Amino acid sequence: MRGFIIGRFQPFHKGHLEVIKELSKDVDEIIIGIGSAQKSHTLEDPFTAGERILMITKTLSKYDIIYYPIPIRDIEFNSIWVAYVKSLTPKFDIVYTGNPLVRVLFEEEGYKVKTPKFYNRKEYSGTEIRRRMLNDEPWEHLVPDEVVKVIKEIKGVERLKKLAKSDKYENKT
Amino acid sequence: MRGFIIGRFQPFHKGHLEVIKELSKDVDEIIIGIGSAQKSHTLEDPFTAGERILMITKTLSKYDIIYYPIPIRDIEFNSIWVAYVKSLTPKFDIVYTGNPLVRVLFEEEGYKVKTPKFYNRKEYSGTEIRRRMLNDEPWEHLVPDEVVKVIKEIKGVERLKKLAKSDKYENKT
Amino acid sequence: MRGFIIGRFQPFHKGHLEVIKELSKDVDEIIIGIGSAQKSHTLEDPFTAGERILMITKTLSKYDIIYYPIPIRDIEFNSIWVAYVKSLTPKFDIVYTGNPLVRVLFEEEGYKVKTPKFYNRKEYSGTEIRRRMLNDEPWEHLVPDEVVKVIKEIKGVERLKKLAKSDKYENKT
Amino acid sequence: MRGFIIGRFQPFHKGHLEVIKELSKDVDEIIIGIGSAQKSHTLEDPFTAGERILMITKTLSKYDIIYYPIPIRDIEFNSIWVAYVKSLTPKFDIVYTGNPLVRVLFEEEGYKVKTPKFYNRKEYSGTEIRRRMLNDEPWEHLVPDEVVKVIKEIKGVERLKKLAKSDKYENKT
Amino acid sequence: MRGFIIGRFQPFHKGHLEVIKELSKDVDEIIIGIGSAQKSHTLEDPFTAGERILMITKTLSKYDIIYYPIPIRDIEFNSIWVAYVKSLTPKFDIVYTGNPLVRVLFEEEGYKVKTPKFYNRKEYSGTEIRRRMLNDEPWEHLVPDEVVKVIKEIKGVERLKKLAKSDKYENKT
Amino acid sequence: MRGFIIGRFQPFHKGHLEVIKELSKDVDEIIIGIGSAQKSHTLEDPFTAGERILMITKTLSKYDIIYYPIPIRDIEFNSIWVAYVKSLTPKFDIVYTGNPLVRVLFEEEGYKVKTPKFYNRKEYSGTEIRRRMLNDEPWEHLVPDEVVKVIKEIKGVERLKKLAKSDKYENKT
Repeated sequence: MRGFIIGRFQPFHKGHLEVIKELSKDVDEIIIGIGSAQKSHTLEDPFTAGERILMITKTLSKYDIIYYPIPIRDIEFNSIWVAYVKSLTPKFDIVYTGNPLVRVLFEEEGYKVKTPKFYNRKEYSGTEIRRRMLNDEPWEHLVPDEVVKVIKEIKGVERLKKLAKSDKYENKT
Repeated sequence: MRGFIIGRFQPFHKGHLEVIKELSKDVDEIIIGIGSAQKSHTLEDPFTAGERILMITKTLSKYDIIYYPIPIRDIEFNSIWVAYVKSLTPKFDIVYTGNPLVRVLFEEEGYKVKTPKFYNRKEYSGTEIRRRMLNDEPWEHLVPDEVVKVIKEIKGVERLKKLAKSDKYENKT
Repeated sequence: MRGFIIGRFQPFHKGHLEVIKELSKDVDEIIIGIGSAQKSHTLEDPFTAGERILMITKTLSKYDIIYYPIPIRDIEFNSIWVAYVKSLTPKFDIVYTGNPLVRVLFEEEGYKVKTPKFYNRKEYSGTEIRRRMLNDEPWEHLVPDEVVKVIKEIKGVERLKKLAKSDKYENKT
Repeated sequence: MRGFIIGRFQPFHKGHLEVIKELSKDVDEIIIGIGSAQKSHTLEDPFTAGERILMITKTLSKYDIIYYPIPIRDIEFNSIWVAYVKSLTPKFDIVYTGNPLVRVLFEEEGYKVKTPKFYNRKEYSGTEIRRRMLNDEPWEHLVPDEVVKVIKEIKGVERLKKLAKSDKYENKT
Repeated sequence: MRGFIIGRFQPFHKGHLEVIKELSKDVDEIIIGIGSAQKSHTLEDPFTAGERILMITKTLSKYDIIYYPIPIRDIEFNSIWVAYVKSLTPKFDIVYTGNPLVRVLFEEEGYKVKTPKFYNRKEYSGTEIRRRMLNDEPWEHLVPDEVVKVIKEIKGVERLKKLAKSDKYENKT
Repeated sequence: MRGFIIGRFQPFHKGHLEVIKELSKDVDEIIIGIGSAQKSHTLEDPFTAGERILMITKTLSKYDIIYYPIPIRDIEFNSIWVAYVKSLTPKFDIVYTGNPLVRVLFEEEGYKVKTPKFYNRKEYSGTEIRRRMLNDEPWEHLVPDEVVKVIKEIKGVERLKKLAKSDKYENKT
């Protein structure tokens, strides 16, 4: 049996890892959708899809889990989103999500949907981790070691801090 | 003479119907643009274009009005929007709108634009109807009977309530 | 029961009309997808979606058929095409098509698909009708009277002939 | 040496002109990216790309500056934005920007980036100028004379005021 | 009076230059649309929009002509193409084209359209020039000197030859 | 060191496998771009990106190779294609391709590009394998066993044969 889960993974943290480890007891293979794949270089979405795939792959290579990390672009057209996901992924039987929209969209297409158990959502949170990065507070313990390494390599914290230097004067253009 | 009117129709309500009945005294045929056609499954835009076409067609079949319901996708490019509308619709002579942007865009292309009279805008309002649906308050009297039937058939209120169960934790991805 | 049929209708001809009349014996309502809705002003696809809707509506208004003419844009992404069609149309139970791709796509989504009987395909053919228009041969008897009227009104034959004046020197740009 | 600068120029004002005159001492040629080129007819972005090109060209024709005004559409995909800009522009050696995102994106691609000196940012500001236009306060002294002429010709202030007549009732659709 | 002309300019050659010089006697300012702006790196369209702008600007800077070179992307939606062109360009009064499609599209929008006189079309032809580049035959005399310089600088002939080394085995992907 | 290779993999065959095995001696990790990811259900491109990922993953799981299979959509904009690929992939140092366009695009961005050695290109060829599938000739020995299994599971040959039943009468729409 194959399961599908989606996240933005900005960055991939221990909460994500726990959920995936938990799912791997239920299903044989896990498709990991990398959501908002086209986004990067913003305070909300600092990392590219490629960088996020690297975080996930480096971390999961240590576990005996069969997984497929697949970038999923936002398409702003909810009623075709499930078909879009299906076209990019191997067939799956169950969807794990805590998000009501994802739940509704898959349920209307006849999928079984479960809510995964989340761990320590206050700290294991992309928002919290990015906030800590910006404020020079410790964040490394909230993500797997391999993710720390990837973020260092791509100078992720430096990128985030530069992006925050907005002078509120003008947007990109 | 043919007239053009546009709305999101989330859902199609008695205010819309009154406007269309009123217009039908002015013009021989009415083009009904279904705006934001690509949107659905959100709290603001719960219904698909197809579902909205069904609401309109089922309701208007009872009236002696010649109309063309046509889905119009958002294109985020105002200066070509009128050309886009024109490509999808039979030729029309007059535009009815209360919206300043639509007015400006059509006027700059040389169209005659009129503001329709709106009825009971506080209650005959998509926002108000969706609010009532979410809060189990009566909404059925604000839309034509056929729309009640369509919404029941597609389990529209149920969909809206499920979408509202946001745990504020994460967006789709 | 509702059926779905799709065509480019360049232009809408008597072969199309016969098929639709035939289907109307099988189903209560017919969704008529106007394919390649974004195309117009070429030798293959001279008419806009709006013009084609006009041809269909003017013709069918004489018959006691409930139908929904809906423009469907090409999306060049076969595996999401069915979902795209579904989002723009009222729910349907059966698909009528003679096209293998459309058949495969709908069958893989679990739809029942039937091949309609076609009439006099040599003459009731968009290609043949456009060829006749270009060569000043009679074409009017191959389309419903209302379509003749629409094409005259929009100066369709004139448009086609102007488009054919290619000097083979350069494309649009 | 060629430099690149980008702005929305809604409208092109004396602050922009000062910056460009200043840059022209550093570089031989200036590429002027017209950002959000697809936007127009909103309170934030009232003018089309074509209108903004006209403002810039009419103004700069008086100066001995070699420049290339080039419309740049938003693409909502930060990590390919620099490549997109490069494809539309002659090769350049240096980027001038006060915007952190633009800085990061170009620096990550190996470009040298400088912050231009801005003049009187409180008044030489598109936001301030559009506010004044809406409130019938003097704005003409904040833009070059040629820009006043262009805006009069296209009835820009009139357009802005019409767009502001929102009844807060509904968006375009 | 302002005129509009469009071409792909792959590359900009003496035939183009002659046409533009001729037009400049008729109109005060010329908008030069760079067609298929998104295309580059193919045998048919080797140069980027930015490179083509450079060819045009370097050449025309020697003449006393007011012109606006503006990249125009293909949009594959003929009935909105004129609106798209208008949004990106200063207002114009007349269109010069030898292309039937461009003629029809602008005429249907009420524009006056003229066919420019072309010179020596057998040799002053992008196709011929690219053929010569590939076959090491002289091509330099068919384009303005400045264009020779630009093409050398960007190693254009080298690029074209590399692209021609197709082993007919597979397309890009 | 990480290498990048791209293919359409319609289907993934032993020639692809040999190339990847060969590359794995040169580099530590291989990014496998699944080209034309949006295509499926045609005679040229019968399989979805998800199905192709499954073929690759099932096959390579038997080998001690670190790889990243990543769907890459066609974007029809050559000069931004490399940036697009980079955004979706972990950083790579070398590109393997026999395709001249891919070579030129990456070389112009400063990448080192090598041509892989191909094996038995007459038979280890997607075109040949699809031809055999259509003509009931043996094809199974040309692809890895796992790919045979995947194609059986998704009824790939059946799909291909249905798609081939074109009556040459009309395209999708």
